[in-house]
Amino acid sequence: MKLVCPQSELSTHLSLVSRAVSSRPSHPVLANVLLNADEEKQLVSLSAFDLSLGIQTSFPAQVEVGGRLTLPAKLLGDIVSRLPSGDIVLDDAAGDPEAGILTTLTYASGKYQMRGLAADDFPELPIVEEGDVAQLSAEALIEGLRSSLFSASSDETKQVLTGVHLSLQAEGLEFASTDGHRLAVVQTVNQQDSGEDTPKIDVTIPAKALQELIKMLERGSSATVTVKFDQGQVVFEWADQRLTSRLLEAQYPNYRQLIPRSFSHQMTIDRRSLLGGLERISVIADQRNNIVKLSINSHQQSVTLSVDAQDVGSGRETIAAQITGEDLEVAFNVKYLIDGLKVLNTTDVQMQLNTSTSPVILSPLGNLKMTYLVMPVQVRG
Amino acid sequence: MKLVCPQSELSTHLSLVSRAVSSRPSHPVLANVLLNADEEKQLVSLSAFDLSLGIQTSFPAQVEVGGRLTLPAKLLGDIVSRLPSGDIVLDDAAGDPEAGILTTLTYASGKYQMRGLAADDFPELPIVEEGDVAQLSAEALIEGLRSSLFSASSDETKQVLTGVHLSLQAEGLEFASTDGHRLAVVQTVNQQDSGEDTPKIDVTIPAKALQELIKMLERGSSATVTVKFDQGQVVFEWADQRLTSRLLEAQYPNYRQLIPRSFSHQMTIDRRSLLGGLERISVIADQRNNIVKLSINSHQQSVTLSVDAQDVGSGRETIAAQITGEDLEVAFNVKYLIDGLKVLNTTDVQMQLNTSTSPVILSPLGNLKMTYLVMPVQVRG
Repeated sequence: MKLVCPQSELSTHLSLVSRAVSSRPSHPVLANVLLNADEEKQLVSLSAFDLSLGIQTSFPAQVEVGGRLTLPAKLLGDIVSRLPSGDIVLDDAAGDPEAGILTTLTYASGKYQMRGLAADDFPELPIVEEGDVAQLSAEALIEGLRSSLFSASSDETKQVLTGVHLSLQAEGLEFASTDGHRLAVVQTVNQQDSGEDTPKIDVTIPAKALQELIKMLERGSSATVTVKFDQGQVVFEWADQRLTSRLLEAQYPNYRQLIPRSFSHQMTIDRRSLLGGLERISVIADQRNNIVKLSINSHQQSVTLSVDAQDVGSGRETIAAQITGEDLEVAFNVKYLIDGLKVLNTTDVQMQLNTSTSPVILSPLGNLKMTYLVMPVQVRG
Repeated sequence: MKLVCPQSELSTHLSLVSRAVSSRPSHPVLANVLLNADEEKQLVSLSAFDLSLGIQTSFPAQVEVGGRLTLPAKLLGDIVSRLPSGDIVLDDAAGDPEAGILTTLTYASGKYQMRGLAADDFPELPIVEEGDVAQLSAEALIEGLRSSLFSASSDETKQVLTGVHLSLQAEGLEFASTDGHRLAVVQTVNQQDSGEDTPKIDVTIPAKALQELIKMLERGSSATVTVKFDQGQVVFEWADQRLTSRLLEAQYPNYRQLIPRSFSHQMTIDRRSLLGGLERISVIADQRNNIVKLSINSHQQSVTLSVDAQDVGSGRETIAAQITGEDLEVAFNVKYLIDGLKVLNTTDVQMQLNTSTSPVILSPLGNLKMTYLVMPVQVRG
């Protein structure tokens, strides 16, 4: 393999795939990036794969001799990112048995040699040949993921709850995530009408892979993403990039039945005021059990947030709100409210409640169709 | 104590003193900040002290009732920094025995109570009454510290080497720091002529305290800093701020005798080119023993940097330089060269050498009078 390409291109694309390089690889070759230079297409593709998440990206380059090789991803990335802009030559002296698997990187005033591992040892990124295919709007994917990812569990033992559940129906895309204490459900319109053949998507994808997907989509400019999936894998493809992930196979909880249909209390409130108050209250709540009490006062049309951590101190904030229904006291884990309010992202939000022990719904007052359900906590006294 | 002040003032000054709050306090009160409200001067001062470093700062406020109290520094800082701008009232209901040591913070739409500790338990910041006093230029202090701090040892067992040695002579200020492997010496002109009475300063100050001093001076706009010192303490005072630190009392090494007076080799080189090459070489050197070899080629008027880490790879960079003297090969810990070149801060730098085992001097070609000495390392073969 021998190729010439600009430093900036190679550096950008190495940084993209680096997210799928194992930090503690089970096989040495998984710490490497696979470079595949196609002489006919004058294209180089880079791949990294940690056996769960795979990322592939390609870019045009002057390929003098085609071929495949692997190099240590971090070492190559660290050197290339420190090079001045200008052309880089990568050459593995193919055919020269003495060169072994040494690859030479040359630039205007220097030369580096790195020891790779055989390209044939690098596992193929999963492909989905027999599965279903759908076209999704990149914008809808970004919007839905941004509003749901935060609510997935980060506890690896929670298995299927560490993912985001994605479903595609006639009306559009639905994203759901829950860690058992709160639930975010987001509906977005999928502008890509792919006709009657569009399959019903119903999959749970690890949040870690989706966090990378959102970053890659935000950087790119592609309008449409092709999604292919079968029982065990999902592949997202757009422009010159591809992200693959294993699926979480267990049954996702039937979350729709958790959302109450009617409410006895409703409150509309300025999102930033409520978020600011909760962030200050959380400084004291952090010292104890993270619990904030909300006292909804219908007569005064206000809500009072309060915390009492005896040894440390106490706090009270009062915020104006439009309230219908009787007075109510209800307590929450302050972090769950803060997480949701950061994402709801409209000027006003609506809070709907029944009793101090039944699920509470937060939703934005705007275009985004999002439902955020939080379970209150029971407090003594 | 009762006072009214703008949120922004209190937040800024709390953040300033927070650097002297113990993270693992030996006495509970050292996790607190001392507030002292002076009704007559309409001034509030904040103090924090970890028994080695002390910081005090004051600002004007509407003091309705003077007094002293302490509050948990982190808790207070976290709440105040999250408050919206506007006036804050702090009130400890002085004289009300039922209030105990609860202090109330009130702002437009909320109220926090925090439990403090008795102000009398807070240790006084050291003062120097009998010692020497000098006026130093803030600019010279910043310049000297910026160019010397990096070279002090961060290994607490190295005692006096964890400090920067500061001396004031007729010619100006001299800063020196060494960790045993390299030495930085910086001379700056002290524009503050304080007459014939100016004492000879000759002290070693912990680098940690000086790192805080430089940050505080860079934020401020004061031209002159008053330095008072005796056997065990140094106090820097300017505008409304004060930083105190214990001194490192052991004898500082006689570093001047380490600097060679004559050299058989001299090289002038573009600083950024040398630094860039070393940073790339260090990616590979990191994998082995951090050693870079410099081959100085007088005939070609160039220097070649090289590294060879057998299992990983190798690297070579060639950089043009103006060289006098014979060819020479010399090896260094690449990190020491990088650290120095980051600070030297002129377009070209000069490197002066004798043999591959004797001290090498780097110096900037510009106004700053700095000498950076690095010991080469011996390599086999």
